[in-house]
Amino acid sequence: MEKGSKTGLSRRLYEEFRSRIADGTYVAGAVVPSTRALAVERGLSRATVSLVYEQLAADGFIETFPGAASRVVTGAAPATLVTKLSNPINEQAAASFMLGLSAIGERISTMALADWSPARTGEIDFVYGPLAGSDFPSLNWMKAVRAVERQRGRRLEYEDPLGNPDLRRELQAHLSLTRGLVCSIDQLMIVNGSQQALDLCARLLTDPGDVVVVENPGYRMAHHVFEAYGAALQCVDVDNHGLVTDQLDGLGTVRLAYVTPTHQFPLGSFLPIARRRQLLDWAALRKVWIIEDDYDSEYRYAVRPEETLQSLDARGCVIHIGTFSKTLSPQLRLGYLVLPKPLIKIFAAAKRLTDRHTATGVQRALALLLETGGYNRHVRRIRRLQQARQNALVKALDMHLGGQVEVQGAASGLHLVVWFRSLPANVEQLLVEAALQRGVRVYPISSLFNPCRPSWEKRQLAGLVMGYALLEPETIEIGVRHVAEALFAVREMICQAR
Amino acid sequence: MEKGSKTGLSRRLYEEFRSRIADGTYVAGAVVPSTRALAVERGLSRATVSLVYEQLAADGFIETFPGAASRVVTGAAPATLVTKLSNPINEQAAASFMLGLSAIGERISTMALADWSPARTGEIDFVYGPLAGSDFPSLNWMKAVRAVERQRGRRLEYEDPLGNPDLRRELQAHLSLTRGLVCSIDQLMIVNGSQQALDLCARLLTDPGDVVVVENPGYRMAHHVFEAYGAALQCVDVDNHGLVTDQLDGLGTVRLAYVTPTHQFPLGSFLPIARRRQLLDWAALRKVWIIEDDYDSEYRYAVRPEETLQSLDARGCVIHIGTFSKTLSPQLRLGYLVLPKPLIKIFAAAKRLTDRHTATGVQRALALLLETGGYNRHVRRIRRLQQARQNALVKALDMHLGGQVEVQGAASGLHLVVWFRSLPANVEQLLVEAALQRGVRVYPISSLFNPCRPSWEKRQLAGLVMGYALLEPETIEIGVRHVAEALFAVREMICQAR
Repeated sequence: MEKGSKTGLSRRLYEEFRSRIADGTYVAGAVVPSTRALAVERGLSRATVSLVYEQLAADGFIETFPGAASRVVTGAAPATLVTKLSNPINEQAAASFMLGLSAIGERISTMALADWSPARTGEIDFVYGPLAGSDFPSLNWMKAVRAVERQRGRRLEYEDPLGNPDLRRELQAHLSLTRGLVCSIDQLMIVNGSQQALDLCARLLTDPGDVVVVENPGYRMAHHVFEAYGAALQCVDVDNHGLVTDQLDGLGTVRLAYVTPTHQFPLGSFLPIARRRQLLDWAALRKVWIIEDDYDSEYRYAVRPEETLQSLDARGCVIHIGTFSKTLSPQLRLGYLVLPKPLIKIFAAAKRLTDRHTATGVQRALALLLETGGYNRHVRRIRRLQQARQNALVKALDMHLGGQVEVQGAASGLHLVVWFRSLPANVEQLLVEAALQRGVRVYPISSLFNPCRPSWEKRQLAGLVMGYALLEPETIEIGVRHVAEALFAVREMICQAR
Repeated sequence: MEKGSKTGLSRRLYEEFRSRIADGTYVAGAVVPSTRALAVERGLSRATVSLVYEQLAADGFIETFPGAASRVVTGAAPATLVTKLSNPINEQAAASFMLGLSAIGERISTMALADWSPARTGEIDFVYGPLAGSDFPSLNWMKAVRAVERQRGRRLEYEDPLGNPDLRRELQAHLSLTRGLVCSIDQLMIVNGSQQALDLCARLLTDPGDVVVVENPGYRMAHHVFEAYGAALQCVDVDNHGLVTDQLDGLGTVRLAYVTPTHQFPLGSFLPIARRRQLLDWAALRKVWIIEDDYDSEYRYAVRPEETLQSLDARGCVIHIGTFSKTLSPQLRLGYLVLPKPLIKIFAAAKRLTDRHTATGVQRALALLLETGGYNRHVRRIRRLQQARQNALVKALDMHLGGQVEVQGAASGLHLVVWFRSLPANVEQLLVEAALQRGVRVYPISSLFNPCRPSWEKRQLAGLVMGYALLEPETIEIGVRHVAEALFAVREMICQAR
């Protein structure tokens, strides 16, 4: 208790200095108060203040000089240390010994990365991302896994960093048929989900300070990867036809653009051919790498899209990435890249240094699932299931909220965007909380804007990203009913506040 | 059949439009024929043509207007007419368009990273790394996999980036028992083999230009990772007691040291406690991160090692890493880190950005294998197998090359180092080639020195790293006999050259 409160005081003082240095209150070279003066001023023991100064010196915020005042170190701001330890082995020792992180580490530690948290139960969860375990093709998968296990190789050794040859062969045929991708097997690389594809691209194609164009709103987990490697994000707006490519010409030097042209995340638009050409022409002229994230094209319920940026790209600046997280399971960690030929060798080397190759078992099982046609049958089946869920959601929204909401992105995917016509964006969080009180978890769209909603965006309305992959039609109907009640409650609150 | 050929017709018609728009035959705003007219002209059903138009409209090539003719969209054709498409990436164009790589990419591309190559057959291969498929505990593994598959979760969602909780719980108990590691479950992180552990450490703890201490000779795939992130390697010699820690004080500022104290790779020595303390004290004084790579401690045939650097480390500067590549299979891609507490959060965030988490299936299967005791039984069994192979190798070396070689590292591991007493290092490659002519593949030790053998190394002798995990005792005996013949042949060549 005694020790705890003391630590608390030290910690607060430490944090105070750190943030004052960070926000520029204490500039480089500034003299900090003597330990004696500060101890008197704050009513702390001199030992406590000394300890804090030692820590600050150890962490490089201040420099101490024998017999002279301590000063703020040049370059100490912005201060970006990992939040200090809650309970290490030897708390004191470890705390004072926390060695420096790299620049990448520092950037990640100061990133507004939402914490990973385990699944909640007992809620109707309109989350986007997870799939229902019952949708997984368990029998066929198990059959494939068993067949693969029976044929273990004589040598268990590192595989080709580009991926299992059987899987790449099957995948090439599959992508050619279903996505019209024109690529050789060489150009295909298997990775641990599209997240690893993004990580490799960021690492191999961008340097700190480079400008990376991203969509606004967009997929934040991609943006964070580029930020981690030091890229400066340049947000380009998205309208009903996807990326507003007219904004590209006004940008300065750009190194890479990350786009979701088939099904813009989260707004759901398909980038029309004219904008695709504009994007590619701009990239060609300005020498910009383009990452085409084709994350859920299997779920196009109306006319299937055939065009990809990759197939329009004559210059080899497009890196096409895809995933099996939306059709099989995000827990398999299987995705792929279609690489321009000049990049094959360097990506293979980087993958090898990163983790040698993606685990063999799942790759071979998926190859078998593709080969036997089981995968295609599964996709057809799950597409129908998802469409039924989407229909239920659209219908429920119409029934319970008709006229009050505008639904976007119903042509494809595993989520919708729902705009609330007369609810301003700044009460979005109230709506989320009111829904949660009724046992329904919904997700605000504002968190996908970066840094905030663009000024041109007329619809400064509250919006939700509503995923439906986990829910059955009946549950969806109940969930939407509760959201409608939540909306009603929020409206009441607003009225009363006036 | 009927449907297939129809699809073919649609596809051809679609392609025709697409390429005519691309090559400028159909300019922006041009009216496309009515579905009726085109159907008659081509002898197609009107439904087929309508379908193609819908697709063209969905992809943004044409715009349809109710009650009016459809038109080619402005911007659908490339600004600069690039003909392409059937032949994916016009290689000429692509080559000239190769955009820049990042600094990391450039460093990897200029790295002397030996190409990955597939397994060779028909040789007696004394390779180090691969394991024999027949040693894998197939039945128990399959049982675990099946049990795991039967219990698929209701939500298939991203798991904890630190790894599956069941596996971490089992692993903590296992490591505490077998390695005397003192850590909480929190500190354990599952990764895709130790290679990914190294990659995360390099990325989060080192900046370009930082000095990283490595052992010479040492594990080159670790060194390359640090080099990729821009570290300057500082080689410290290895003698019969491992890292020559006396050399550490003479070094300047160092950010990180990568060591294999339990079983130095490749020389096989165990770092004595005095040197361990010296290493830790130096690291504490100089603020150096230490990576302890515990890659094959399961295979200690004499006294089991108890001490790890991690358990001696009071200051939280040691990151302990391990792998299942040496006991189960390198193709599973399973390894782990034991992190100092202050690093947990940042490593979890980085893993999440890198690839979310390691695939769930293998993690859960391994957890079950640990839980049921199957893993420990397997390790005991395979340790006996490997020891029998090692005995066969030592015996064969003694029989065929006794007196002419010195064997190092027989206390543990899956390989030996064999020094050829009267053969100079510069003919090592001749020995390798002579052996290969006799159907035996052996590996020179020189490639593990970086940049070359240290001057103090008295033994400027030819040496081989001989792995035995793939071979049965009888084959080992035959292999060594051929190596002896190869040695004889090389001696002859040297004599004749004089």
